[in-house]
Amino acid sequence: MKTQTLLNYAQDGWYAASGPLADVQSAVTGETIAVTGSAGLDFRAMLDHARKVGGPALRRLTFHERAHMLKALGMAIMARKEELYELSYETGATRTDGWIDIEGGAGTLFSFSSKGRRELPNSRILIDGAMEPLSKGGSFVGQHVFTPLQGVAVHINAFNFPVWGMLEKLGPTLLAGVPAIVKPASATGYVAEHAFRIMIEANILPPGALQLIMGGVGDLLDHLTLQDVVSFTGSAQTAMKLQTHPVMARESVRFVAERDSLNASILGPDAGPGTPEFDLFIKEVAREMTVKAGQKCTAIRRALAPAEHLDAVEQALRERLGKVRIGNPRDEGVTMGALASRAQRDSVRKAVGELSRAARIVSGDPDLSPVAGNGAFLSPILLRTDDPWGSAAVHDVEAFGPVSTIMPYHDLDDAIALANRGMGSLALSLFSFDAATAEDFVLGAGAYHGRMMILDRTSAKESTGHGSPLPVLVHGGPGRAGGGEEMGGVRGVSHYMQRTALQGSPAMLSSIIKQWLPGAAKPTGDVHPFRKRISELDIGYTLETSNRTVSLDDIEHFAAFTGDTFYAHMDEEAARANPIFEGRVAHGYLILSFAAGLFVDPAPGPVLANYGLENLRFLTPLYPGDSMRVELTVKSKSVRNEEMGEVRWAVFVFNQKDEVVASYDLLTMNQP
Amino acid sequence: MKTQTLLNYAQDGWYAASGPLADVQSAVTGETIAVTGSAGLDFRAMLDHARKVGGPALRRLTFHERAHMLKALGMAIMARKEELYELSYETGATRTDGWIDIEGGAGTLFSFSSKGRRELPNSRILIDGAMEPLSKGGSFVGQHVFTPLQGVAVHINAFNFPVWGMLEKLGPTLLAGVPAIVKPASATGYVAEHAFRIMIEANILPPGALQLIMGGVGDLLDHLTLQDVVSFTGSAQTAMKLQTHPVMARESVRFVAERDSLNASILGPDAGPGTPEFDLFIKEVAREMTVKAGQKCTAIRRALAPAEHLDAVEQALRERLGKVRIGNPRDEGVTMGALASRAQRDSVRKAVGELSRAARIVSGDPDLSPVAGNGAFLSPILLRTDDPWGSAAVHDVEAFGPVSTIMPYHDLDDAIALANRGMGSLALSLFSFDAATAEDFVLGAGAYHGRMMILDRTSAKESTGHGSPLPVLVHGGPGRAGGGEEMGGVRGVSHYMQRTALQGSPAMLSSIIKQWLPGAAKPTGDVHPFRKRISELDIGYTLETSNRTVSLDDIEHFAAFTGDTFYAHMDEEAARANPIFEGRVAHGYLILSFAAGLFVDPAPGPVLANYGLENLRFLTPLYPGDSMRVELTVKSKSVRNEEMGEVRWAVFVFNQKDEVVASYDLLTMNQP
Repeated sequence: MKTQTLLNYAQDGWYAASGPLADVQSAVTGETIAVTGSAGLDFRAMLDHARKVGGPALRRLTFHERAHMLKALGMAIMARKEELYELSYETGATRTDGWIDIEGGAGTLFSFSSKGRRELPNSRILIDGAMEPLSKGGSFVGQHVFTPLQGVAVHINAFNFPVWGMLEKLGPTLLAGVPAIVKPASATGYVAEHAFRIMIEANILPPGALQLIMGGVGDLLDHLTLQDVVSFTGSAQTAMKLQTHPVMARESVRFVAERDSLNASILGPDAGPGTPEFDLFIKEVAREMTVKAGQKCTAIRRALAPAEHLDAVEQALRERLGKVRIGNPRDEGVTMGALASRAQRDSVRKAVGELSRAARIVSGDPDLSPVAGNGAFLSPILLRTDDPWGSAAVHDVEAFGPVSTIMPYHDLDDAIALANRGMGSLALSLFSFDAATAEDFVLGAGAYHGRMMILDRTSAKESTGHGSPLPVLVHGGPGRAGGGEEMGGVRGVSHYMQRTALQGSPAMLSSIIKQWLPGAAKPTGDVHPFRKRISELDIGYTLETSNRTVSLDDIEHFAAFTGDTFYAHMDEEAARANPIFEGRVAHGYLILSFAAGLFVDPAPGPVLANYGLENLRFLTPLYPGDSMRVELTVKSKSVRNEEMGEVRWAVFVFNQKDEVVASYDLLTMNQP
Repeated sequence: MKTQTLLNYAQDGWYAASGPLADVQSAVTGETIAVTGSAGLDFRAMLDHARKVGGPALRRLTFHERAHMLKALGMAIMARKEELYELSYETGATRTDGWIDIEGGAGTLFSFSSKGRRELPNSRILIDGAMEPLSKGGSFVGQHVFTPLQGVAVHINAFNFPVWGMLEKLGPTLLAGVPAIVKPASATGYVAEHAFRIMIEANILPPGALQLIMGGVGDLLDHLTLQDVVSFTGSAQTAMKLQTHPVMARESVRFVAERDSLNASILGPDAGPGTPEFDLFIKEVAREMTVKAGQKCTAIRRALAPAEHLDAVEQALRERLGKVRIGNPRDEGVTMGALASRAQRDSVRKAVGELSRAARIVSGDPDLSPVAGNGAFLSPILLRTDDPWGSAAVHDVEAFGPVSTIMPYHDLDDAIALANRGMGSLALSLFSFDAATAEDFVLGAGAYHGRMMILDRTSAKESTGHGSPLPVLVHGGPGRAGGGEEMGGVRGVSHYMQRTALQGSPAMLSSIIKQWLPGAAKPTGDVHPFRKRISELDIGYTLETSNRTVSLDDIEHFAAFTGDTFYAHMDEEAARANPIFEGRVAHGYLILSFAAGLFVDPAPGPVLANYGLENLRFLTPLYPGDSMRVELTVKSKSVRNEEMGEVRWAVFVFNQKDEVVASYDLLTMNQP
């Protein structure tokens, strides 16, 4: 492979470093395949460019527009994925490992795109929670909203997943409307640089949205402000250095860290040899040790089993690990490739050295190179301790490679305490088919772990596994794991936005958030709202219907017709005995049905269908002889495509005393 | 007043300091009224006590049980509020100032109690968001939950609101199930200590839930872990010292800070003299300067007006400030009391000195003592700059007293930029009756401010004012304000809990979260679920109904009866032309009504009423001749009191092809 000079991407141009370059070696052959550096970049100018060009351009777009860009970025990666697989092999990754990184990365963009279109509005302000009444008369109310930060997201990524690690941070960042500066790790930066290049060449994002630093970040941190976010994945040591940088505390710069993690997996007390859960546990521990050569921040480092089953676990794991085929990941039949670099292998060997003073190696030899040549190969190393409370290192030393330690526990409380002894982790799993065990497990260990998987015979087949972070779930963990949280669908988007509590009149807040709020004006007009297209419907526009009296005959007829002869509608004496009613009442569904009869305008027109209803509450019983009328108000609207969009209507049903009988949100599909 | 020795409360006992004590003076008379100190406390033992005794006891309770305790604590404060008012006068606070602190504090507990009972479940795990499908077959799913942190909340409070400042932190902490160690500020600690004593004497909380440090915190921080939270209110300088303590980064201790804030208020471009908004602005700026003698972290420090109206603003403010009556807050007619201490007055004078190099004083004299004697009195100081972009100090120096600076702006963008120049604030207000202005204001300034109030003629009368944090809204701000967030209803509770993503089979996760999830088992039985009390209803218990065919006659009859003659039900040709339907379809409300007819068991029994419905979606059209059947499943349940509770039912309506026609959550009130 020809040695390639990796370029930085700053202020919408590609730049080679002006100063010294670092060599990057193939993990498989040890040959230098790239040189990289960031000397000469003007980091302050890069930040300014993102703030002045990229941020405003992204903030002008709606969430849906940004979501469409994410999908296009994912498609661009997928269209050129084979180029990335070729580079990925050089990092020591097998095709399966590369699939997690490359297609998993694109899939993360697709997931955020989909969440953005389904769960975020087609506008620029994100509404958070319900309106909060702040006054008796209702003229002063509160509403939380999220708006995009006006700064830059600085992403400092780890070496293990150069594509996925970049995209899992970019997805929520761009969806929030915030530009990013990406700094990949040097060992595998050539894969990240190529993926980045694919996105730039696809010409999807506005200028200033993305920049790339292929080396040190110089004085970049000195210029951060309250509007910026640093999102870091890597070692606890580097994380602490970043976090304690004086600018971070002074400016309250947001800091999201995902760092060391001594993830554990527990074989449940019920899951002895012979149970499906025992086999699943063995399979998963071995898989987590070998996928990506164990270089996963979520990999199982500590495997806990009931003391009486530890020998069986050791035996089964040794057998399984014996079948691993290590070699050049391009070769057929190879199931485990190399570590990302020889430096990384050195660091794993050092960690194994520390571990082996607290535990004994029962499988694998850290000093052997299982493959000839200059590649960074290492065989899987299984350690065992029989005194886990006396072996601090097994809970504190993370060997970031194909290394795991098995250990016994006495009962579930002991297992939970040992899991929590990791002092905060990204992922914890339990192999058990017992629901009571699982509940105690979550209550006991939840506070120490960001993700917890309970696997059994019913879920294993479709499981994504202990080690897979998923875009719809939060990824991160407390304590040693850094205390950060990434992804988790829309939750991850909020990390790049500011939550603000708005206060004012309902009319004023309605006009800001583009959603009618109780207390805001309800103007009426000559035209029935069902005769208007979405573009013609103003927020707040209201139809006031005529009255309809509900008779006892209506109720009895409805009961006979539908079959709903619940006593509260049919039996005066029994209804009176009910603590809520004063006598026979109209059916809730009769009220809904009559309400539609009052507000529906029947002829074909812009309204296509009633597709749902939300937040229905029956607030005042409607008695025979009462009358009802409806106010139907445009609450919010969202155009989906050229053919359809959604309109949400606030519906209030009143009785003759103007008491609210029922309130709900009606959802219709309309023509735009 | 007799000099009182303030006591610490550690490990469920009262302790006097063993070492040197600091004197605390009355703000009004300058006499020493208390001595205080924490020497000799074993801080590590206090943390251990909270972790081993208080935490487990609180975690055993449900959210509702904890919410009831908060209400009782608030009632205890209210029952003895006059004792607190007496002490509060000595801090320089008027009765109105004391009301904010004392009754505002109790009100905050009531608010959290109410939110806890209405918005949190009567159980110990908080469900966060919807189930996430993670597999095609549905056998592996995800669900986010919150569980309480297993450590201690360390609350380090400011001097200005000794009661409210303590209770606004304790409300969400205790509701989350986390014990607290409170450290009040020394100047007004005697009020906090008394409020704390009232709570302890009321004997509401379990042992270990609360402890009190009446002095320095010694080596407490050295012993914090990932399960602890430090919540700090005070100066940026102290906040940074805490934040950069090495243990904080090492253990990723959660840190919530509310620190300096140069809050601004903007007179809108539309709000010239003669408008109601102009008068409201003047009133609010003057009020914010004088309430609590300006010692509010949310007080207006910068008052911005259109350049052409700045003279009028200065004139009106000078007039209004001229009417302020400063004196002993116990005296009738006094509208502004003293600062909390002479040291505080010195610090305000120093800050005014810095400000007066960038702006000129147009009202008040910082060097005069407006009241004779040794009290910490100071008159309101109004400054003015006509060159706000050339006067850095007015945006950077917070004089924590009755001090504000007026300044001009050119247009709304300039006003927003000046507001944002404060580098992050707790509260920003705009006085405007123009909705377009308000929208630009939120999009432009939202990212820099934690709370934004838009006030006008319609909302002013009921407004709680620029400076009032409210328990249902978030309190905190980015950047200089510390980047923290407190309160905000349930949002504030999550700061003391860990979010964990659970993965597993629907059955396993259902049993953990006590909520039926799609894919979990739906056992049936001989007894109709309407015949069972809440205690007898198992999560997942399901009624499968018989089939009912829906005829064209049914549809036509329903249309005639209800008046809902929408064309999609009545006109075959027009329905076919609709992009969603293939011909005439049954009304959605007919489907709901027939569904009830199928599942309702009519005789009097444990089901009292259908009180609502949520998440209804019509998924497959039902055509004439199709049949429908219902599956009604117990989704979750919550006992409210001895008479009633809520049952949530998952309802699925199927057609003869087993396609889901409609799905929704039905809500009923039932007997426990």
